[in-house]
Parts: sequence; structure tokens; C-alpha cells
Amino acid sequence: MGSAFLARAMKLPDVQAHRAARPFRLTRVGVTGVVKPLRVSRHGKPNHLVGSFDVFVDLPAAQRGTHMSRNIEVVNRVIDEHVRKESASLEDLASGIVHALLERHEYAAEAEAQVSVDYFRERRTPLNQAPTLERYGLFASAIALRDGAERRTVGVEVTGMSACPCAMEGSRTILAQRGHAVEGFPTITHNQRNVATLMIEAGAGASVEADDLIDMAEASLSAPTYELLKRGDETALVMHAHEHPRFVEDVVREMLHHVVTRYPSLPADTLVVARSEAEESIHKHNAFAERAATLAELRES
Amino acid sequence: MGSAFLARAMKLPDVQAHRAARPFRLTRVGVTGVVKPLRVSRHGKPNHLVGSFDVFVDLPAAQRGTHMSRNIEVVNRVIDEHVRKESASLEDLASGIVHALLERHEYAAEAEAQVSVDYFRERRTPLNQAPTLERYGLFASAIALRDGAERRTVGVEVTGMSACPCAMEGSRTILAQRGHAVEGFPTITHNQRNVATLMIEAGAGASVEADDLIDMAEASLSAPTYELLKRGDETALVMHAHEHPRFVEDVVREMLHHVVTRYPSLPADTLVVARSEAEESIHKHNAFAERAATLAELRES
Amino acid sequence: MGSAFLARAMKLPDVQAHRAARPFRLTRVGVTGVVKPLRVSRHGKPNHLVGSFDVFVDLPAAQRGTHMSRNIEVVNRVIDEHVRKESASLEDLASGIVHALLERHEYAAEAEAQVSVDYFRERRTPLNQAPTLERYGLFASAIALRDGAERRTVGVEVTGMSACPCAMEGSRTILAQRGHAVEGFPTITHNQRNVATLMIEAGAGASVEADDLIDMAEASLSAPTYELLKRGDETALVMHAHEHPRFVEDVVREMLHHVVTRYPSLPADTLVVARSEAEESIHKHNAFAERAATLAELRES
Amino acid sequence: MGSAFLARAMKLPDVQAHRAARPFRLTRVGVTGVVKPLRVSRHGKPNHLVGSFDVFVDLPAAQRGTHMSRNIEVVNRVIDEHVRKESASLEDLASGIVHALLERHEYAAEAEAQVSVDYFRERRTPLNQAPTLERYGLFASAIALRDGAERRTVGVEVTGMSACPCAMEGSRTILAQRGHAVEGFPTITHNQRNVATLMIEAGAGASVEADDLIDMAEASLSAPTYELLKRGDETALVMHAHEHPRFVEDVVREMLHHVVTRYPSLPADTLVVARSEAEESIHKHNAFAERAATLAELRES
Repeated sequence: MGSAFLARAMKLPDVQAHRAARPFRLTRVGVTGVVKPLRVSRHGKPNHLVGSFDVFVDLPAAQRGTHMSRNIEVVNRVIDEHVRKESASLEDLASGIVHALLERHEYAAEAEAQVSVDYFRERRTPLNQAPTLERYGLFASAIALRDGAERRTVGVEVTGMSACPCAMEGSRTILAQRGHAVEGFPTITHNQRNVATLMIEAGAGASVEADDLIDMAEASLSAPTYELLKRGDETALVMHAHEHPRFVEDVVREMLHHVVTRYPSLPADTLVVARSEAEESIHKHNAFAERAATLAELRES
Repeated sequence: MGSAFLARAMKLPDVQAHRAARPFRLTRVGVTGVVKPLRVSRHGKPNHLVGSFDVFVDLPAAQRGTHMSRNIEVVNRVIDEHVRKESASLEDLASGIVHALLERHEYAAEAEAQVSVDYFRERRTPLNQAPTLERYGLFASAIALRDGAERRTVGVEVTGMSACPCAMEGSRTILAQRGHAVEGFPTITHNQRNVATLMIEAGAGASVEADDLIDMAEASLSAPTYELLKRGDETALVMHAHEHPRFVEDVVREMLHHVVTRYPSLPADTLVVARSEAEESIHKHNAFAERAATLAELRES
Repeated sequence: MGSAFLARAMKLPDVQAHRAARPFRLTRVGVTGVVKPLRVSRHGKPNHLVGSFDVFVDLPAAQRGTHMSRNIEVVNRVIDEHVRKESASLEDLASGIVHALLERHEYAAEAEAQVSVDYFRERRTPLNQAPTLERYGLFASAIALRDGAERRTVGVEVTGMSACPCAMEGSRTILAQRGHAVEGFPTITHNQRNVATLMIEAGAGASVEADDLIDMAEASLSAPTYELLKRGDETALVMHAHEHPRFVEDVVREMLHHVVTRYPSLPADTLVVARSEAEESIHKHNAFAERAATLAELRES
Repeated sequence: MGSAFLARAMKLPDVQAHRAARPFRLTRVGVTGVVKPLRVSRHGKPNHLVGSFDVFVDLPAAQRGTHMSRNIEVVNRVIDEHVRKESASLEDLASGIVHALLERHEYAAEAEAQVSVDYFRERRTPLNQAPTLERYGLFASAIALRDGAERRTVGVEVTGMSACPCAMEGSRTILAQRGHAVEGFPTITHNQRNVATLMIEAGAGASVEADDLIDMAEASLSAPTYELLKRGDETALVMHAHEHPRFVEDVVREMLHHVVTRYPSLPADTLVVARSEAEESIHKHNAFAERAATLAELRES
């Protein structure tokens, strides 16, 4: 740049006119990474959670100038107001935010709110039935249009374990070749942390419980994992996982099967995303499988 | 689970039959987070880069059983073979991978490869014209279908600076009220790191240079940033940024203007994503703006 | 490896004997990344927080064999028990954990617990005095020895803003050279997010309130930041920051000054760490300053 | 703050005088997160790497005012100059940087440079001996004092696999109770990704090869991991890991044993840090073990 750089610095551009020269519509304008404490009350029992929000509205081509700083200000205020109230669910909270945004951003045709939290449920360990508090990822979003249409998403992320069926067959073959009687019980294989994700997006009327999604995703893995395992629990868990060896592909197909069975009356245009990512113990990278489809497509297959 | 858990552990499920019961197609099966050194040669000059790969194929409903472990093995082998060769560009490398996958995964209808790298270009500091090596994010992907169709994406991520026009007007008003003559030069405002992202997805024939995208995204910010600023450079940079104050919305619209002007002959169905995320110095969260549209849509506005 | 690899696989090593051959003491054995909801009650008002724990004991050289899996089990159980109770502070929670560990790990000479949380406090915006909930990082740890000695650490991380004094002087000079009267008010400079960290480690008897550390760190920056800024607040904040321009070095020295003044009666061997990291808006990297010293050293300077 | 806030904003503080009031020494002043391409030449063969740098000097209490912005400028310039030259090793590069800093920061008593890279080595798969490029983390630092003393650190991070000995004994017991003959071969257990870290800090004269540290850390795990496993390799790897079951404690002790054996002539005050972190497949958190000690201490045990 050099001297031309400083030369340009001598006179101020006419900012407003300049900006008027780029009259493009914007798909999403808003904030990311807003972190707030919030309360979700389920069955009369409050959950205290820490939510991370991304919230957007669209912006027509004509909208520009001093209004722009107001966009962000209004988004921040609406988030602030809504987290101070108790919500019935994360998706209700997201829905409340997008409707308030459409009211106050009179020029916006569309508003979107996403929120994710760490969420905890009490589980029982496999053998001793000892209580243990387990962490799950919870995600909800709402997109509302000016014309009244609304779509809501509920998603969960479950960290469990997957054991590889292929290497188990390989180890059985080798052990048999060495003269061991290895039929009738599981032989060694690699196993690892596996993050199963299940998301369902439907119209505002559809009812999907996050707790159900967690149960379905967790049951689709080779085994759940636990923060606390007492004497005997660890072995019981390892046995269970090896008796249910699963590829990432299997984990996804299990989840899809659960969803199709569990929600016979959800609308055909309901969108389902099921994903399994295995943090492979034999590789430095992950194995990954995913299906994204409407319930109509899943019901056909 | 308890005793039922152990009871179930007594007999091995018939894994193959079990899996047959969930005959769902999978959209994406593959690997994520594969990191490899690679060489891209531009204008006869090799760039040594470290690429992070996510690579997938789809999987028909009928495909199951022992083939599954092979999926991952073939994906890994194809990546390994391709990074050992020199490529003309990241998108050529991605394209080579997806075509090799379609050849070796005879049942796949679709293959997808994504790769991202840190990329460096020599810049000159604003006042002293001192050379400084600047880092940019580079991203490329290719998706190929069995029927021959292919789409490629080239994307860049540029870290620069944005200065807020609204707070500058506010400070000018307050300083004027206090009796200062503040017309004719920029007054104080908040400024911050701003990450501008620009991605273009087109058919395999279209030619988009990553270097051009970097130049367009960098020019759309209030100012570039530099790893090295010598005496005088810092002030020159601050002056430049404050003479080009921009909201995140402005940064996106600048990028869109550059793209529409620069690529008059790219096909109408070319997809453009332009995004600006400001790590606000006055907030703990980020401000965000984005447009995703076809070139046809952008040319109309 | 090849065939030697498989050859070795033919006979099982005597695992216990093998391990006896490496009788090294271990400094820290335990768990990292345990995430749990917890309640801290301050002035009778409960705070619901999500804590991330790292917890360790040491292990003598003689300790080996089947006891090892028990180490992790006991650590997990102690964390689980303590988060189910309400604590008076994060450091009390950490202290409770380490004392329980010394009781149950009879061979350990030392136990250590660290916990970090996102923590929220209500602030008022600079001009409108509107309430806004602000996020802070909170960290506490306790290390206890078998002989009774205990050290506790309380630390905070405050995200605020720093404005550069040097570039402000540079811009003033250039504007003056251009004939503008720029004395008596702040001129433009680069400003950015600045993360100020302040940690105090003292004997178990010392009383340090995390809220006080937050106040001191926040006051040491050019300005606090707010999640919500109403009309006029943004300009007031920008004015305040530019009237308190600070290098990272200044931010650290301000914190040290506050600590020395605020804690005249804390023991001389109290350890203080003060750190400021500016996410420079003119660079792609961060500027950093830090002091680690005892109160005795700080009182001398 | 409110009106007092704006009231304070009316008059500029005397910045220089203000700063003089806090004459604290600073332990570390510099930059973090500087990313640069660099070349390290080993045995005449250049490695092209991408380094991330943190670089600091100390600052005496008397040093303040306009010199401070120069600190960062000089640090940036020295990094820039040194990455443009080829180095014999990462620690040589770090050493070159700290000596140049002491020359140009005449008031600094101490300088420190840290650099980390992704590093790749060709390995052979366990059964097929197929070549595969594996990723390792490499870290080096140098600290030099004005009086001539210098310490250098070389560290490596190796991602491999650990299989739990305890759960293996548990599964053997249960399978035996069910009447299976399970002596003479490994039974099922949980296994997982395990990140082994090995760092050695010694005086400037000591010679420690990063490649040797990688070999020692990798050999201390239950098994290495590979990005590419051909038919048969996967089973061979799983067999090997289960024939070398190891707790995190075992992995650390193996590394310590290797270090003591490999470096009989390194000085007694050489510092060794060995660490193993297992991303437990049965838990959502990690298991961790570590030893930090001098070679003198390790040689005694």
C-alpha cells in the first residue's frame, strides 16, 4: 500500500453512500456464542442449564445505514429477556426468541434461534445399579417465517462405546487357528468412544422429547458409558459392548430404526439426521456414518 | 440393567442377521480428521501444506456385513495415495480422491472429499512495505456422482479487522457536544478481529483461484492484519481501518459485490457463501452476517 | 513389525511381573474432563453451575497391579459424592474432594483437585444502567498433603477490552500534522478483546473471594464488556475504553497493584499470577503479559 | 457506572504518569499463537512444517511507556527472520530466537521461545508392512538468561492405543465361570485412544533426538495406531494391543524406564515429564497419569 495508502487516508469516504452501492439481501444477521444460564422446567422440576446461543434474522437489500447496529442490539435484548423466564423446553425457548424477533424486526422475513446445553440425567450402573449422573449434549432450534410457518429441531449427542464386529471375527479366526475353542463368546476387538447424534426437525405442532432421543441414541451404541463404575460394573459393561459389536454404519441404522418405530404419526416431511462418529482406537482419525432424510424416505426403505 | 444385563450377555446375537434388519441407505460413510502433509504446485512453485481431510461415500441399503470395515480401509488408502502425488490445486486433489473412490466403491452412487489447510502468502506492510508472511485458511471440496456430475468448492477464511461505523458517529456527536472540532477525520470506535469467509461452489469446469478469493475477502474488511508491523505501520493500519468503518453486514455485501463483478461468466447455478464474524471488542460474543445464494440471485439484486 | 509381531503375539506376557519391573513413583494419577452440575451457595443464594474437574493423587513406586483400576474408581466416586452436596465455594468443594481422597487412598501422600465453571454476575450497562448478565470464568483448586498441609487456589478469567496507548499517540501525531486540533480528547487506536486472568494461591486459612478477583481484573482493563448495550451505552463504553488505553503490560500491573492493596494481611508466601492476553485486532496472533510472584516479592517492588 | 462514568470521561488521564505508578516487574511479555511455515533439515532432508509459536521476554519494573509497543514488534520481527532460515532442529530454531531477543531487548534478563508442529514419519503396518505416514506432535522450547545459561526442551505427543489389564482379568473370570477355556490367550477388555507425552528439558549442550522420544513413547503404549491398515493388519494390531494391556500408570512407567536406560550420560538435573491420557471408551472422561522428575530422582527409584 505505502504512500497511496496514506494518501487515501487523507479524505473520509462518504460511508452511507458507499454502503448504498451494495444493496444485497443478507440471509442471516445476528450473534453467535452468547452464553447464558437458563431454566427449563420439565414435569414441574427445574433444570438449571448453561445455554450457548446463535440467533439470526434475515435482512432485505434495502435495509442499511444506522439501523444495522440496532439489529444486534435487538437480538441481544430478546435473548436476555427470554432466558430470564422459565421455559417448558429448549425448543420453546428458541421459539419464543424467534417470534419476539419477528415482532421487533419489522423488516425481517425470517428469524432463527439455536441453543445448545450440557444436560444431565441420572442413570444406573450395569451391575450394581448404582446411581450415576451422565452428561448429554442437547440442541434445539426454531426457524419462523413472517407468514406464520415454523420449524423446530430437537437434537441430542450421546457419548457411548462402539466395538468393531470385523476385528472380532478376525481375532476369533486367528485364535481358532492357534487351537483355542473360541465359539460361543465374544473375542477381542478394538472399541472406542463413539458420539451418536440424533436430530429431528418438524413443524411447530410435532412433539419430540429430547429424553426419548437420548434413550434411542444410547440404545443404538454397543454400550452406554458411565462416569462411575463400581466393582463388577466395568466387566459387565465390557461384556455387553462386545456382545453388541457395531460399526458406525450399524449405529446409524439402529437409530433410524428406532425413530421410524417410535414416531408413526409424525408428518412425512419431518427431517431426521442420524450420525455416529467413532474415535477409533486403532487410528488417529475418526470413522463416520450419517443419514439425513425425511421420515417419508425412511418409512419407504 | 442389572441381572437382565448379564443374562443377555449369556448368548451371542447373530450379528449378521441382526444388521440385515435395518436396511437403511446411508448418506455419508467415511473418515474425519485425517491429517497429512501434501504438496500443491502453483505456477511451478511447490507449496508444502498440512491438510485435514473428511472423506465420504454413500452406502446403499443392501450393503452390509463384512464389507463395512472395507469402506474405511479403501477411503484411507485413496487419501494416502493421492497426498503422495503433487496436485495443481486443493480442489484437484479433492477431485482425484472422489473419482478414485467411485472406481473402488462400485456400489457407491456419490463420493465427497473435503480438505482444509493453513496457507501463507507474502504481503507488504502498509507504510514500510516490509515483507510479512500472512496466514489464511483454505478449503476445497469435490462431490462426484456416478453419472458423471461433479461440483467443486473453493473457500477461504481471512482474518482481518472491522471498525464499527455506528459507534464512530456516536463518539463524533459526543466530542462535538463537548466543543471539539471533529469533522474531517475519523473519531474513535470499537474495532476487532473479523473473520471473513468466502466460498464458491461450481461445476467441475469453472475456474476459481483461491488467491483471488483471499484478495476479495481481505479488501472487504476495514483493514487487513499483519503478523509484522514496523514503526509507523501500526498507525497507518489504524488510520486505514477507521477510514473504512464496516459492520459485518457491510463486509458481506462488499464480498458479494466483488464476486459478482469478478466472475461475469461463471454459470448462474454457481453457489456463493459470504460470511463475516466479528469478535466484538465490546461484547463477549460475536456479531455475524452471511449470505448464501446462487450467482443468478446475486446478479439480480 | 511383521512376522516378529505375530510371533510375539503367540505367548502372553506375565503382566504383573512385567509391571513390577518399572517401580517408578507417579506424581499424578487420576481423571481429567469430568463434567458435573453443582451448587455453590453464597450468602444463602444457590448458584447452579456446571463444573469441569481434573482430580489426581500421587502413587508410590511400590503400588501396582490390580489396585490401579481402583484408583480411578475411587476418584470418580469421591467427585460424585461431593457434587451432590451443596458447597460454600468452589475451593471448599475442591478441598472436600482432596481430603476424602487422602482418606480412601491410604498410600497417597498428596491429592489435588481442580474445578472450573462458567459463572454469571449481573452488571449494569455504562450509560442506561440496564441490568445485563455477564459471564466470567471461575477456577479453584486444592492440594493437600498427608501431613496436613493444604494450599488452595482461586482464579478468575475476565473478558474485557483493551485499547492501545501507542497507536493512539501515533494517530494524534498524524492528525495534528494534517492540521486538526486533537488535544484534549482520545484519538483513534486499535482495541480488542482482552482476557485478564488473576489467580491467588494461599494456605487453607486465607480468605479470597472470587467476586473480588473479578472486580479487580475487570477494573484493570481499558473497559469491561457487556452482552447487552442499549442506545448510548455503546458510545459511553467506547469513550471509557479510549480514555483508559492500556497495553497488556499495563493490565497486568494494574491487577498486581489491586492485589497488593486489597490483601495486606495475606501471608508473604501467597502466590499471585496475573495475566493479560489481547486478541489483537491488528495482528492474527495475541499479545501477552504475565507476572507470577509471591506477595512478598510484589510488596517489595 | 452511569453518570460518574461519563463524568470521568470528561478529562483525559495522564497515561504516562498513571503507568509509572505500577512499577512491577513482568515475568513474561510477548506473543502467543504466531503461526508460520518453517523448514527443519534432518540428515540433509528438509521437513516442511507449520509451527505455532509463543515467545516471551521478561520486563524489569523500570521499563514502561512507549517502549512497550516495541516489545511486541521486536518479538514479531525475530520470529519472522528465524523462520525464513532453515534450522537443524526445532530446539535450534527456538534457541536462535531467544538469543536474538536478548540481543535486541537490552533490558531483558531472560527470553523464552516455544514452538509446536505436526510432524510426520513413515511407519510400516504390523502385518503387511505397508508404508503409512503417521502424525506426531512435536514441541521444543528454549529459555536463555542474560548470564549465558540456557535450557532446552524437546517434547513429543504420540497417539496410540491402551487396553485395560483389569477388565481383561474380569472378563476372563466371567467367561471361565461360564465354562469356557480361556487360558493362554487375551480376553476382551476396553481399549481406547491414548495420548502419550514425553518431554525432556536439559542444558543447551545435551543432545536429545525427537525421533527417539517418539519411538520410546510409542513403544510404551499397548500398541501404535496407523492411518492405514490393510487386510489382516487390523487383527494383528488388536492382538498386539491385547497382549500388552496397560493402565495409564503402566504407560508412564514404561516411558520412564526407556528414558533412564537410553540416556545414561544426560546430566542429573535433566528434567523429564512423562504423561499418558486415555480417552476411556467406558467413561465420558479421561484417565490420566504423569511423572515429573529429574533424571537423578528417576535413576534412584
